[in-house]
Parts: sequence; C-alpha cells; structure tokens
Amino acid sequence: MEKIPGIRDIHDAAKRIKPFIHRTPVLTSSAVNALVQAELFFKCENFQKTGAFKARGALNAVFSLSEKECARGVATHSSGNHAAALAYAAGLRGMQAHIVMPENAPLIKQKAVRGYGGAITFCRPTLEARETTLQQIVNDTGAVFIHPYNDYRIITGQGTAALELLEAKNNLDMVLTPVGGGGLTSGSALAVKAFSPKTKMIAVEPENADDAFRSFTAGHLIPSVNPKTIADGLLTSLGDKTFPIIQKYCDAIVTVREEEIVDAMRLIWERMKIIVEPSSAVPLAAVLNGKIEAAGKRIGLIVSGGNTELDKLPWR
Amino acid sequence: MEKIPGIRDIHDAAKRIKPFIHRTPVLTSSAVNALVQAELFFKCENFQKTGAFKARGALNAVFSLSEKECARGVATHSSGNHAAALAYAAGLRGMQAHIVMPENAPLIKQKAVRGYGGAITFCRPTLEARETTLQQIVNDTGAVFIHPYNDYRIITGQGTAALELLEAKNNLDMVLTPVGGGGLTSGSALAVKAFSPKTKMIAVEPENADDAFRSFTAGHLIPSVNPKTIADGLLTSLGDKTFPIIQKYCDAIVTVREEEIVDAMRLIWERMKIIVEPSSAVPLAAVLNGKIEAAGKRIGLIVSGGNTELDKLPWR
Repeated sequence: MEKIPGIRDIHDAAKRIKPFIHRTPVLTSSAVNALVQAELFFKCENFQKTGAFKARGALNAVFSLSEKECARGVATHSSGNHAAALAYAAGLRGMQAHIVMPENAPLIKQKAVRGYGGAITFCRPTLEARETTLQQIVNDTGAVFIHPYNDYRIITGQGTAALELLEAKNNLDMVLTPVGGGGLTSGSALAVKAFSPKTKMIAVEPENADDAFRSFTAGHLIPSVNPKTIADGLLTSLGDKTFPIIQKYCDAIVTVREEEIVDAMRLIWERMKIIVEPSSAVPLAAVLNGKIEAAGKRIGLIVSGGNTELDKLPWR
Repeated sequence: MEKIPGIRDIHDAAKRIKPFIHRTPVLTSSAVNALVQAELFFKCENFQKTGAFKARGALNAVFSLSEKECARGVATHSSGNHAAALAYAAGLRGMQAHIVMPENAPLIKQKAVRGYGGAITFCRPTLEARETTLQQIVNDTGAVFIHPYNDYRIITGQGTAALELLEAKNNLDMVLTPVGGGGLTSGSALAVKAFSPKTKMIAVEPENADDAFRSFTAGHLIPSVNPKTIADGLLTSLGDKTFPIIQKYCDAIVTVREEEIVDAMRLIWERMKIIVEPSSAVPLAAVLNGKIEAAGKRIGLIVSGGNTELDKLPWR
C-alpha cells in the first residue's frame, strides 16, 4: 500500500482491528455546549485500549504483517502512547515488541510497555541516540520498524476513530483533531473527506510546536526544532507521508496557546468528569478561544488520550 | 406515600424524572477486572446531571409536588451534591430553591447552586445553625423542606440508578453502593430485591463514619458523632426512613479504611480515565481489599458522583 490510502483502506483497518479495540463512546456536555453556543461531540479515545487512539494504528500495522514478518518481531522508538500501543498489539499477535525509550522516560510509560510484555532498550534522550539504538536492534533481531505516524498502516488505523465518529453522528459541520506527527490528522482527514465531503476537517496545534501550521501555509515541510509544549503528544513534526494527505484534505490548521490548552483541559475534567491528557484538550481550546467559527455548528472533536501524570497536573 | 415504598414507586420515579436525567453509561475495565478476578460494572452517576446521583432524588421530589406546593418553593440545608441537585430540579420546574449552606462551604459548591438559580443563605457551620436557619426560611417563605435522604421521594428517586443498572446488566451476583445517610443504599436495595431477588445488596462505608455498619449490627440507629473521612459525601448518619429499609433489604454492610478509599479512587482515575469523588471509590475499595468475596463474581457498583476539588487531590 504505497500509494496514498483511501476510505477502503480505512474500512479494511476497521475490520482488522475490531476484535481488539473499544468502539469508544461519543460524549456531549450541555454545560460546555452552552458555553460555546455550539453542539460538540467528543469521540473519547481516552477510553481506548492503552488509553489512547494509538492502539488503532499499532493494531492495524501489527495485524497487517505476514506470518514471516511476525516471527521477526516489531520495533519502534517512542516515549509515549505509541510505545504502549505497539507493545499491546504485538502481545495480542504473540510476537515480540522492542521499544527504544530515552532513559528519562516517565516511569508510568515504562510500566505500561512492560505490562503489555514489551522489551525496553534505553538510550540517551536525543533523536540521534534513539535512531542508532533502534537501528542496532533492527540489525540484531530483524524486527520490523513500525514508525509512530509516518506509515500508511498507522495512518489508516488512526482514521478509524473519525470513521466511527461519523457513523455515530451525521451532519457534522466540522471535525477537529490535535496534530503532532500527523497520523491522527491525516487518517481522520481521509475518513472525513470520503465519508462526509461537506464536513470541514481542521487540525489544531500548539503555537509552541506549530510545524504543521507553518508547513501547511508554506506548502512544504518545515519541522519544529526543539519545541516545548504541555501537549507532550504533539512535539513531533509532520512526516513525508502524513504531510501530503494533510495538505490535500485539511481545510485549515489553527494554533492555540499553552494557557488555552491548560484551561480547556481543566474544563473537560471539571464539566465532563473525564480524564484527558493535555494534547486532547487542544481542539477544544481552539473552539473556546474563537480560533474557529463555532457558533451554531455541530462539531466533532477527537479526544486523543487520557494518559497523564496525576501527580503533575498543569494547573498547580 | 408514607408506607415503605416498593418497586412500583421506583418505576414511577423513573418515568417522572426521565426527561431531565441522563441514562448514565455502565463502564467496565479489563485492567481492573484482571486485578480483582471478577467482572465489575460501574454505573457512572458521575456523568449524571449536576455530577451526581442526587439529581434523581431531587427531581423526583420536586416533580412530585402539587402546583400549590410549587408556588411556595423548596428548601434544604446541604453543603454538597443535594444542594446543587435541588437547585437544578427546582429551576426546571420554574420554582425557587432556598439552600442553607455553612459559611465555609467550598466556593465550587456555592457556584454550582447559584449557576442553577438557587438562593443561598449562609449560616455558621454547625448542625444547630443549619436547622434553625432552615426553619426560619420555611417559616418566612412557606417553602417545602426536601430532606437530602430521609424522604421516600428522595429514596425512590435514587433507586432509579440501580434499576437502570439491573436493566442493563443481568445476572449480577451483587450490587454495591457507598452509604452515608442511606438514600442511595435504601433506594438501591428496594430496586435490587424487587427486580433481581437473588442479587446480593451490600453497602460499603468508611470505617471513620461507620454508623450504618454499627446500626445494622446493633439493630437500632446509632448516629456517628463528628465523623471525619475523605469521603465527604458519606459523613451523614442514617435516618428513620432509610434505616428500616436498609435493615430489611441489605445483605451486609462492610467498612473500608481511608487509605483504601484513596487508593481505589486513584485506580479508577488512572485505569478508567474518569473523575470520581472519594465517596464513589468506597465500593471498589471493598472489592480491592478483600472485604467482599468477589472472585469470579459479576458485581455492579454505583459510582455516586464526580464532584471533587481538582486543586486538592488526596494523593498529594
């Protein structure tokens, strides 16, 4: 599947991963709706297996492998949700997952990977160290590298969340996703434009890690350099597979400030009684702060995950 | 309705309040199930209107009033979820709610009551001051006093949560509720024993506020004196209407320690990604700490609410 995938690939992914994922609920809040004078539909991937949408892509990639590839295992570098998701998916297929993590990765993320049976190799916390360590593992074990987002199997897997949202709620005026490396956004954009062409597809990004916004505007990839944002799932930059899809199918990319993300996150916790990680609050931050014309609209928001450190809440 | 109510009264309550409440979801967690080797079904009243099951009882009481009573308004004393619930219910029926609150009541609770249009009268933080202030308001306005739990309209309203749980999940071996004043527990016990007689009904109480446990064991009411527990919804003692129902229909009352409540609360937040208040974690604490024979059982747990101060989390 090396040409740009289509809706059929997303339907195939949905079928492939169905036994292993939750069809997550779409929640609404009359209090939040009243506040923004719009109808918001939150697709709650914080309730997904492994606590994030990443399970979808990882499962689709792992269950797309041939039997022969299976015997070799999979490998990736990640300190976040993709690491746990890949370990989870590999475990279900009875194969080994090798995860390269920086030595300063949060204990809770290490524990999650180990809990799903993944084998962790630590490295120094630089991109170079991650890549050379990963290459070493691939050389030694023959494991198949599964990139966190720049991979069509991952992209189509992530697109299944938006597909479920569109199946559950019709006539959405727009769908919003947070954007980091662009796996969720490109998959969602493919699903939205095929399933409901008149629905606008908008990605929302932290101003402090705005490579997608700048790349989209410039028309060519401009990676972020050392971005810093509370939305730690969105530090990565678009890749050469996610960017063209986003460029073609997204209607807009808007950015939000750090304090807007924190306020939106707190609002979700307080009013909706669900735990979401900072990255998940980024789309709502755009609605709350007038970055999007929301009044009177029906808006779907993909809540990306719920894995956050309860001992380090950003409003303290 | 001054004889002990029955399942028909709970069905009537369910019909009466249906337009104004959420039919809350029943969530499961494979991680938590694996930990306790049982199947747990969480009836999520933290997602209920006003953030707690209390909306059910308050709505049933308010919508049971005659037109004449309506004109007089309702009144109660509460610093907790009943205050907001009564203000919410009264607002929906277009009548005034007078809420007596201690002057040290949390700002967030005051805000909730005002947000629903309730009128707050402050008093000193003693039971005596609460009662005399309330009496004064009733004398002045003619408002109908709606007790937080010792009232059959409240009891049958609260019973609708267990009814929904039993309708959604059959063959439960037991249903667990937290117990404070006993409104939720007595209503649930009535529903459970009528709807599914072989299902055991068990109440769980903080050891630090164990009047229900002691009263149940002694066979007569023994109120708590100045109890202190993190489960601030469970400080109240049983009343003369809730106790006889609990005595007749509960199979057991067990107690849990403070640190067991905090650990259970954190487990729910971390694994289930939902925000629950400490009182809501009390039933799970009993399962986690072997207070109940849970292995292999199908267990329903009523999650009472999600109103907790995000700036004062108990594990910090």
